[in-house]
Formats: sequence, C-alpha cells, structure tokens
Amino acid sequence: MSAYRIAVLAGDGIGPEVMAEAVKVLKTVAKLYGYQFTFQNALVGGCAWDEHKTHLPESTLQLCRESDAILFGSVGGPVDAQNDPKWKDAEKNAILKIRKVFDLAINVRPATISRILKHLSPLRADIIDKGVDLVIIRELVSGIYFGEHEMAIDETSARDVMSYTVDEIRRPIEFGFRLAQKRSKKLTIVDKANVLTTSRLWRKVAREVSADFPDIAMDFMYIDNAVMQVIKNPGDFDVVVTSNMFGDILSDAASVLPGSLGLMPSASLGSVPQASDSAQSRKIHMFEPIGGTAPDIAGQGIANPLAQILSGALLLRYSFDFDEAATLIENAVQAVLEDGYRTGDIVGPNEKGIKRVGTKEIGDAIVSKI
Amino acid sequence: MSAYRIAVLAGDGIGPEVMAEAVKVLKTVAKLYGYQFTFQNALVGGCAWDEHKTHLPESTLQLCRESDAILFGSVGGPVDAQNDPKWKDAEKNAILKIRKVFDLAINVRPATISRILKHLSPLRADIIDKGVDLVIIRELVSGIYFGEHEMAIDETSARDVMSYTVDEIRRPIEFGFRLAQKRSKKLTIVDKANVLTTSRLWRKVAREVSADFPDIAMDFMYIDNAVMQVIKNPGDFDVVVTSNMFGDILSDAASVLPGSLGLMPSASLGSVPQASDSAQSRKIHMFEPIGGTAPDIAGQGIANPLAQILSGALLLRYSFDFDEAATLIENAVQAVLEDGYRTGDIVGPNEKGIKRVGTKEIGDAIVSKI
Ligand SMILES: CC(C)[C@H](C(=O)O)[C@@H](O)C(=O)O
Ligand SMILES: CC(C)[C@H](C(=O)O)[C@@H](O)C(=O)O
Repeated sequence: MSAYRIAVLAGDGIGPEVMAEAVKVLKTVAKLYGYQFTFQNALVGGCAWDEHKTHLPESTLQLCRESDAILFGSVGGPVDAQNDPKWKDAEKNAILKIRKVFDLAINVRPATISRILKHLSPLRADIIDKGVDLVIIRELVSGIYFGEHEMAIDETSARDVMSYTVDEIRRPIEFGFRLAQKRSKKLTIVDKANVLTTSRLWRKVAREVSADFPDIAMDFMYIDNAVMQVIKNPGDFDVVVTSNMFGDILSDAASVLPGSLGLMPSASLGSVPQASDSAQSRKIHMFEPIGGTAPDIAGQGIANPLAQILSGALLLRYSFDFDEAATLIENAVQAVLEDGYRTGDIVGPNEKGIKRVGTKEIGDAIVSKI
Repeated sequence: MSAYRIAVLAGDGIGPEVMAEAVKVLKTVAKLYGYQFTFQNALVGGCAWDEHKTHLPESTLQLCRESDAILFGSVGGPVDAQNDPKWKDAEKNAILKIRKVFDLAINVRPATISRILKHLSPLRADIIDKGVDLVIIRELVSGIYFGEHEMAIDETSARDVMSYTVDEIRRPIEFGFRLAQKRSKKLTIVDKANVLTTSRLWRKVAREVSADFPDIAMDFMYIDNAVMQVIKNPGDFDVVVTSNMFGDILSDAASVLPGSLGLMPSASLGSVPQASDSAQSRKIHMFEPIGGTAPDIAGQGIANPLAQILSGALLLRYSFDFDEAATLIENAVQAVLEDGYRTGDIVGPNEKGIKRVGTKEIGDAIVSKI
C-alpha cells in the first residue's frame, strides 16, 4: 500500500477546530484499512497574513504541489473588518489563486437531504418527502471570476469580463455527462442564453458533447428559473452543470434544501497533472466545506465539523479511489445523527431527545462508530 | 381631470387573456373615479413578428412614446421552438430593447406573502408566519445585459462584458434609499464584491449615497448568500438594491416565497422625460407581471390574471399618483382570494371550500368587489 501526503490548510475562524475532527476521522479510517497518510499543515488566509503578509505563501503552494490531495478549511474575516489588510481580499487571494494554480476546473457540490435532519429544511415537508439528491457541477477556473477586472483611474466606471473558450466549457460538461451515466441519466445545463453570448457557446458545446451520450436526457434552464425550481421542485434535478458565477449562486440556493451549510462538502477536481518528487505525475484535487469561517463562533468548540469530515470522505473517494472507506465515514455521520448527536446549528425547532454536543464530541462519536 | 393614454402591449401566450382582465379592472376604476383613460393596443413579440417580421415594430415604439404609461403582458415562445425565427431572441429584441429605449433604469419587484395564500409557499409555516414583505430594486438598463457580447468568428470563444458607471449605479441606489425611508429604514445592497470590480464600485457609490440618508441602516450581502437568506430568513430583508443580473436572479429566488409567480407584478421606472405631442414632457414607466407567457396553457381561459391586474394597480400608483385607486384594486384582489376564488395555479394542496374559476371569472369577481 503506497503512502499518501495530504496537505491540510485549515485557514481561519472555525477552520482549525473542524479540521482537527476531519483529520482525526481520516486517521481512524487509515488505521482500520492500513493506509499510510501523512498530514502536513500549512497556513492560508488571515493566519498566513499574520506570519507572511500574504494570504497564500509560496511555502503553502509548494507543500500543496508536493502533496497528493488538499484538504481545505475556510478563509476570511468578520464582515466588518474587510478593510483591514489582514482580511481584505483574503478569499480572492487565497481560494481563487489555489483554484487557478491547480487548475481545479470542476467543482462538485452534492445537495442531499439527510432523512434524519429533514425538519431542518426550510421547505414544507411534502416537498422534502419526495426526496432530494442532486449534484451541481460548477466550472471553477474561468468565466467572470478570472476575466479582466478594471476600475477606471478616476473611479467613475468599472468592468468585469465574462469569457469562455470551448475547451473551458467542455471539461465540466463532459464530467457532468459521465456522472449522469452513473446516476439517473438526466442532466440540466443552467445558463442565461436569452441574454449572454457565453451562454450560447455553452449550449453549443453541450449539444456537441451530448451526441456522445445518447443515453442521457439533457435540458437547458435559465439561471433565474433554476434558483426558483431548485427550491420548489428539487426532485426534478439530478446532475446540473453550470458556469463559475451561476454555479456559485445556484449551489448556495440549493444549500438551502438540507437546512444547514454545516452538512455540505465539496470537491474541486484538478486537471493538470503535477510532477511529484517521486517522478510520478498526478492530478491534485482540493476538498472543502461549502460554509465559511463563522468568526462569531470560532474558538468556542461549538462549530459543526460534519461538512469538513464529509469533505475528507470525498477526498478518499476522488483522490485515492477509497470508495469503501469514504462510504464508511458517510455512514458513520448518518449513524451519529440518528443517535441524536447535534451541534447547535442542526438542532431543529422543538426537537426532542437529542444530545447537544460540541465540535470535539461529535467528532469523537463518529470515530467510535467507525 | 386630465386624460391619460395607456399603451397596452399584451404580447404572446397568456398575455392577451390576462391583459383583457387588467384592462377591464382599470376601466372599472376609471369609471368610479372619473379618470379619462385611453387604451391603445400594439403588437410585441411573436405576434408582432407574424405581422411585421420584427419583435418590436417601430409603430409599437411610437405608440409607447406617445403614451403616458405602458402596460406590458409577456413575450416569448415554447422552450422547444427557440430556433424558430418567430421566437428566436424574442425576449431580448422586445423586452430588453423597450427597457433601453425608455431608459427604464429602476425595476421594482415587491415580494409579499398574501395571508390567504400562505399554504402555497414552499416554505415551512413557521418561516412564513413571521411575515414577508420585501422589495427588490433592480438596475435594469446596464451591466452585463447591455455590455459588449462577442462570439469569436470560429465560435471557439465568447465574451460578455459587465460594466457600470457611477451614474448608472447611483439611480437605483438613491431610489432604494428613498423607498427605505417610507418603509422600515433598512436597505441591503447585494453584490459579489469579493470577486467583481463593478461590485466594488457599487459599494463605493452606496457608501457615498448613504451619507445623505443617515436614518437608513445599510448593509452589504454577497449574491450567493442573498439567494440563501431570502429563502431561509426572508423577514430579515426590507429594501434590497442590486445590479441587473443579480436582480434578475434574486427576484426570481424571492418569487418562490409567495408560492406563485401568478401574484407578482413589477414596475420599471423610466428616467428620461419624453416630449409628448401635448408639448408636456413626462417620464414613461412600464408595468408587467414577473411570470412568462405560459404557452402550454395559453388560449384556454385558465391563466391567472392577478399579477397583470396588480401591475395595473402599480401603474395607477407610479405613473399617475392614483394611490387610492391602486389600493382599491389591491384590496379587491385580496378580498376575492378571501372569498375563495382560485385559478388552478393557486389552489393549495388539499384546499377545501374554494371556488375554482377561470381567467375571466376571477377578473369579474374583482370588478364586482370594486
Ligand atoms: C469566497 C468566494 C470567492 C467563493 C466563490 O465565490 O467562489 C465562495 O463563495 C465559494 O462558493 O466557494
Ligand atoms: C426575459 C428576460 C430577458 C428577462 C430578464 O432576464 O431580465 C426576465 O427574466 C426578467 O426578469 O424580466
């Protein structure tokens, strides 16, 4: 069994607390299956700024390059401290830069509703009962995020450019089609083709790719309609593929369904093979919870580590193909919830007979399940 | 009492049926108050294409220019007919062009939940019970909608440009602040300032304008968070101001709250005074329901005309300052719902003791209330 190096970038706010639980769970699984994992920490975000006056030190990037996978926490400061140089542009400088450097072109964001936590969803029970299990594939390294950003010198005007090439579009779409083949063979492309030329190019590429997947039913939906339908009729979706900005918005809209961001992991898949010191070349993926740094509750030991732990499960699945171990973690999370363990954010209104616990306790409970 | 000319652009699909009810209601109110209204019809969209091979004939534009207000229905064809020249780009050619020509810079989209139709909302009762009453102000004539749209000749890449000037940003923001003063003195600017330079300019302008409104509490929220919060905590919002594209998406997300698009009117306020033939100069506003043409149910007499009727009420209020008459219509709509009248789209699951009616019947019921 070969050895794997995992770069651990806990970041700011609740990042380090929830990361500790995720690493604990991964170590437990490693022992069980005999995996050899090395975990190496590196600074990113505000904490990196404190030491190095940059949100993404070269040493952190170098560690990531030499690793087999990146487990990421979260980055960013309090809303009212955005002009403090420690926090200004922290997300952009750290997260967007890592995405670009490792060409993390494909972002996978599953939104499922845990049967046990159904009552947390803001949606009416009869909508949830139909079941929700969709995956949003978001293009992550192009579009308006990475186009020109210009502010006029006199600050009387500004512009941002959304641009796409066929190749940039094809990658997430092909990934979406392959994923749809393993699921219910339905794929929805979300865009704004009645206004945007880039969306028209998305549709053209999607139609071309779809010719290679005659078994998949593809449809198109405008982003404005999609944010509506994902709430009203979530069961209508299976695999959704969309651009960087629409994916950002739509995946947050969909994150309403489960009722808590604290449960949502994500995988960002790199496409550029990196030359490793072992002379092997491999792609580096990054895994992170969808939620943020929650500075208001940081350091209190009450944050919900489940999304971070589930991000660890995705790491096992997508980076190392350890599907069984990933499923073991996912099942342990479900089991612990079933046993009534809850951090504060996932206690439902009037929920009875539950065990309200902290970050470490729920992590421990998952470890004992495993 | 002076005479007013109202341009009636019913458009496609259910447009003509629901428009007939709105005009009927406006005529009823006019008789009651002694207003002199002239209603003049003009073609727009697919029906204009049939006659003139254009989605927005010059004769229609000219009628609008000579009118005091525009009552608009909806435009667009079936999803599977978008390559038919009759429907291709119909919305863009018709709606976006009218917005630009009349400089309809400020789009007002209220989202309130009718107490009587609460059960239609996909949200859990305890969320709705707190009450929802927010207004989204969307910038409507700039941004990525009207920036350059370019497709490479070989169709291997495309780009769309989002651009804003300080003046374009200031108009909707100032309007939002004045509206907030009449409401609960709270204003939220929605943007993506952690990524977009245009959003940074929005924040700068918002801070400048806010200096003139020290009584208003202003905050900023990212669009991804906003689509989430508007569903989970709709009561946290009052007046929201945002750019063209984010407004398109956010207002559709918010339209989930009332449970039916069939209830949502909108006002698009023009800022350019038009010289009328009576040598008076005035601004022309446009009023339209948020929903679309619903080609699947067009011509059957079952479409819900309430949003169109409520758009007529907004017309009275915003274009002519007939606030009392506008409120009369709004109350009549509520009263009719209270009496149990329902078109098919607003019948709740297991709703008892209601009168299921068609487009014309619910229009008649409103007329008799008035
Ligand atoms: C922090 C921010 C730049 C980021 C994004 O917009 O991509 C975040 O919202 C996300 O979805 O990962
Ligand atoms: C039809 C379309 C161009 C339009 C828009 O995106 O503005 C519509 O969605 C709206 O919100 O009025």
